[in-house]
Amino acid sequence: MKLGGNFFEDLHTGQLLRNPIPRTVTEGDVALYIALTGDRNPRFCSDVFARSLGYPRTPVADLLVFHIVFGRTVGEISLNSPGNLGYADLRFLRPVYTGDTLRAETETLGWRETSRGDTGVVWVRTTGYNQRDEPVLQFYRWVMVNKRNPNVPTGADDAPEMPATASLADIDIPRLERFDASATGGERFWEDYAPGERVPHPQGMTLEEAEHQLATRLYQNTARVHFNQHQQQSSRHGRRIIYGGHIISVAHALSFDGLENVLGMAAWNGGAHTNPTFAGDTLFAWTDVLERIDLGRDDIGALRLRLVACKNVDPNAEEVPLRTPGDDGRERYNPAVVLDLDYVALIPKRAAAR
Amino acid sequence: MKLGGNFFEDLHTGQLLRNPIPRTVTEGDVALYIALTGDRNPRFCSDVFARSLGYPRTPVADLLVFHIVFGRTVGEISLNSPGNLGYADLRFLRPVYTGDTLRAETETLGWRETSRGDTGVVWVRTTGYNQRDEPVLQFYRWVMVNKRNPNVPTGADDAPEMPATASLADIDIPRLERFDASATGGERFWEDYAPGERVPHPQGMTLEEAEHQLATRLYQNTARVHFNQHQQQSSRHGRRIIYGGHIISVAHALSFDGLENVLGMAAWNGGAHTNPTFAGDTLFAWTDVLERIDLGRDDIGALRLRLVACKNVDPNAEEVPLRTPGDDGRERYNPAVVLDLDYVALIPKRAAAR
Amino acid sequence: MKLGGNFFEDLHTGQLLRNPIPRTVTEGDVALYIALTGDRNPRFCSDVFARSLGYPRTPVADLLVFHIVFGRTVGEISLNSPGNLGYADLRFLRPVYTGDTLRAETETLGWRETSRGDTGVVWVRTTGYNQRDEPVLQFYRWVMVNKRNPNVPTGADDAPEMPATASLADIDIPRLERFDASATGGERFWEDYAPGERVPHPQGMTLEEAEHQLATRLYQNTARVHFNQHQQQSSRHGRRIIYGGHIISVAHALSFDGLENVLGMAAWNGGAHTNPTFAGDTLFAWTDVLERIDLGRDDIGALRLRLVACKNVDPNAEEVPLRTPGDDGRERYNPAVVLDLDYVALIPKRAAAR
Repeated sequence: MKLGGNFFEDLHTGQLLRNPIPRTVTEGDVALYIALTGDRNPRFCSDVFARSLGYPRTPVADLLVFHIVFGRTVGEISLNSPGNLGYADLRFLRPVYTGDTLRAETETLGWRETSRGDTGVVWVRTTGYNQRDEPVLQFYRWVMVNKRNPNVPTGADDAPEMPATASLADIDIPRLERFDASATGGERFWEDYAPGERVPHPQGMTLEEAEHQLATRLYQNTARVHFNQHQQQSSRHGRRIIYGGHIISVAHALSFDGLENVLGMAAWNGGAHTNPTFAGDTLFAWTDVLERIDLGRDDIGALRLRLVACKNVDPNAEEVPLRTPGDDGRERYNPAVVLDLDYVALIPKRAAAR
Repeated sequence: MKLGGNFFEDLHTGQLLRNPIPRTVTEGDVALYIALTGDRNPRFCSDVFARSLGYPRTPVADLLVFHIVFGRTVGEISLNSPGNLGYADLRFLRPVYTGDTLRAETETLGWRETSRGDTGVVWVRTTGYNQRDEPVLQFYRWVMVNKRNPNVPTGADDAPEMPATASLADIDIPRLERFDASATGGERFWEDYAPGERVPHPQGMTLEEAEHQLATRLYQNTARVHFNQHQQQSSRHGRRIIYGGHIISVAHALSFDGLENVLGMAAWNGGAHTNPTFAGDTLFAWTDVLERIDLGRDDIGALRLRLVACKNVDPNAEEVPLRTPGDDGRERYNPAVVLDLDYVALIPKRAAAR
Repeated sequence: MKLGGNFFEDLHTGQLLRNPIPRTVTEGDVALYIALTGDRNPRFCSDVFARSLGYPRTPVADLLVFHIVFGRTVGEISLNSPGNLGYADLRFLRPVYTGDTLRAETETLGWRETSRGDTGVVWVRTTGYNQRDEPVLQFYRWVMVNKRNPNVPTGADDAPEMPATASLADIDIPRLERFDASATGGERFWEDYAPGERVPHPQGMTLEEAEHQLATRLYQNTARVHFNQHQQQSSRHGRRIIYGGHIISVAHALSFDGLENVLGMAAWNGGAHTNPTFAGDTLFAWTDVLERIDLGRDDIGALRLRLVACKNVDPNAEEVPLRTPGDDGRERYNPAVVLDLDYVALIPKRAAAR
């Protein structure tokens, strides 16, 4: 691994990087994840409830698995990144338990220099494995990376196609023995969510520097922009930028209210951090139901959901448009909108709720 | 569970609410509790010491059990609460160990609309159970709850009597095999504390936003006033209010100095958060010995103690009156006093300290 | 243990203090340590990697062991200390695992009143033991301690000699079965570091009040200057001072980049907190290679390293002199330099990296 991390020039297409620093997930990580994000899904915090669903004990929260796998890749991919641009076809393939050791491999799929010439976009696919070399998570992402030599053109112009949606084929979906909704407090099942419906999430959460730094260090994600105020002072924002994954986790934790019976995430079709978030911002979220997917089973169905997070404006109190016209009249993401995540959630059908 | 939580109108007398989200307590929670509060009682952090007292290993700190059980009830009772008014007859019935899964049930015992008509007081009794359905904690509390429709009178006027003191009858008090005071650093035993005596606690602790938010999220307590600065900005205080339970824990941790040999809490007779606390405040505490209770055993006795916490004034350096006259001449709690807790502590007798 | 801690007058030469509050180290502590410091050494976070090195599972990070043992001694030695002055001959004698219970004993080796007469220096040697009474850590330190009665001279003038370097004789150094550098991302082994070489560490880390307070409380280190803003407001600095050990840990975590294959610390020859650090400061670090020590083994060698940390100036961008002339023309530590640590690291030889 290069001291100071890879730059755009190092990330040409066709490499298979074995990302260093394997990480055993522990009960300590799980407790910190709850304390940092406010996660309340009982599948991830109650052994009793997890066993009632057929698990041996609580699996590790899917987003915590994502953050740890993602963290493995930062040193080689995004240490010198001003920002992650997007995700595609992310799949949670298999449950992870405390005591499992996660590692990651990343393939570089494409690269393209930007027109200004000081950065480039790199497309990669990362796979997270457990200690039995079973894949537990796979995802595509594309990310802006600084060039080492901004004045030397690379000619890189190789942008691959990204999958438009995630395949659910390889995902290990447990068979529900029974589902005790008194453990979640939820009253709605797969059949009760209608495409086109908006699920409001009433709570808001103000973010602190110490919190996002603790979270990001827990995942051993060392990207410079999150930690180094001395450097950020002279950046465009003048401040540390909160790790986008922390925003996903906090927004997702807020979305528990209204989606209490969701078992967890199966996959992401795509996602984008549409604007940066800073300490002191208060995060809100809502969920739009995009599609009800019948998995052909009588215990569990899937919902395609769009989780949107915004900052410093309460969507429960006023309309928050997703897009607003910029100075040039072109529609862009509303500067208050910070996350737009299109994902597939698993949720029991009524028949399971005996 | 209602989206956005119950309001006063929902909390009429006579309901039995099975509070959702069971929670397995882990070593991660225990470490975070120490980091967040500064707890140093070796009974809760040393397996070796715990075994010397006859426990199989360290029990979970009694206040951590309280916070987790309390946290279960917030969604249904106090999500829309401007503040908890009081506690009565709280009993720590049985030790909890890491790996245990806690759940809660809450009975609504009474309700009364306030004269202004926009809020009401609700009286409840909560019981925390472990995964064997054994009660581990029981307490009464009464809490101010916002009305959904401030302009529609409910006529609710049903205020129950609260127990004046806690019964010690059902509390599982271990039999001490021996007590090695070199593990606590304490030199005083049950016989050495005299009613009327004040035990000073020399340390002070400044509180940070990230700390109280981490603690309160760890307990999955989602009450709005602790997290949402966007909302609190327009509130009376203009700031997030620190969860009162965090104040109890920090004050109790400060009280270790001077009460080193206390084994833990058996019960609370009553308690009140007498003023709000905010990030940036420095907390101090003292303990008044109210009563020495002989349990009729030669190994352990009990002390009835009054733990008082104050902010931004050091009671070791100047007199801090509990009550001061307000503008109207009536005596009220000194605005610097934030906690007044009347509790019963277990402590070895000299005979146990062989 | 005296309420309010010992003062200089209490710490005369020749005492053996059995420091109270034994502490079981848990997975929760380990996760918090990673979140608080950013430690990435896979020996301390991957069971799989630790087993590949011959350990039964991940040992506890050496610096976390140091902080916990150090924390045991604060109540008796440094609660009333304005600052720790130095360390000598610190040895990590034996691995510690989660589940082990640590305790400490401290001998007072010397004391000397300062010329101003309001403080004195105390020299001590602390040994940390596990639950089998095996020593796991031993170190000398000397510390400034406030006098209880600044106006009453003690006449104490008994300054012992401190060891100039640490002996490596008693240190339990594991035999490496093999070393998989793909787990660390490091490309350099013992043979690749040359005395006189400077190893730059590219990252910086900004420190927050909540972070250092969480860390210091986790170690149950209660020294007043770290927590009590009400008191510190009227101190020379007007602010809480960050526990020097937190600085060591953050600087050491930053030093992973460039020293990826280091297995851990064997010993410290000496160390000093050369200037105080405060919340808001951004920490940087570099390492000077002082000596390559051949242990006479073909699997592992040692490096004598000098880890220097500085604040609010990036040594990767500009020259940071270790010493600068003061107003009186005398050379002193550069006010930007906050740590000067001379330690011995263990690192595989090339032969082990099969």
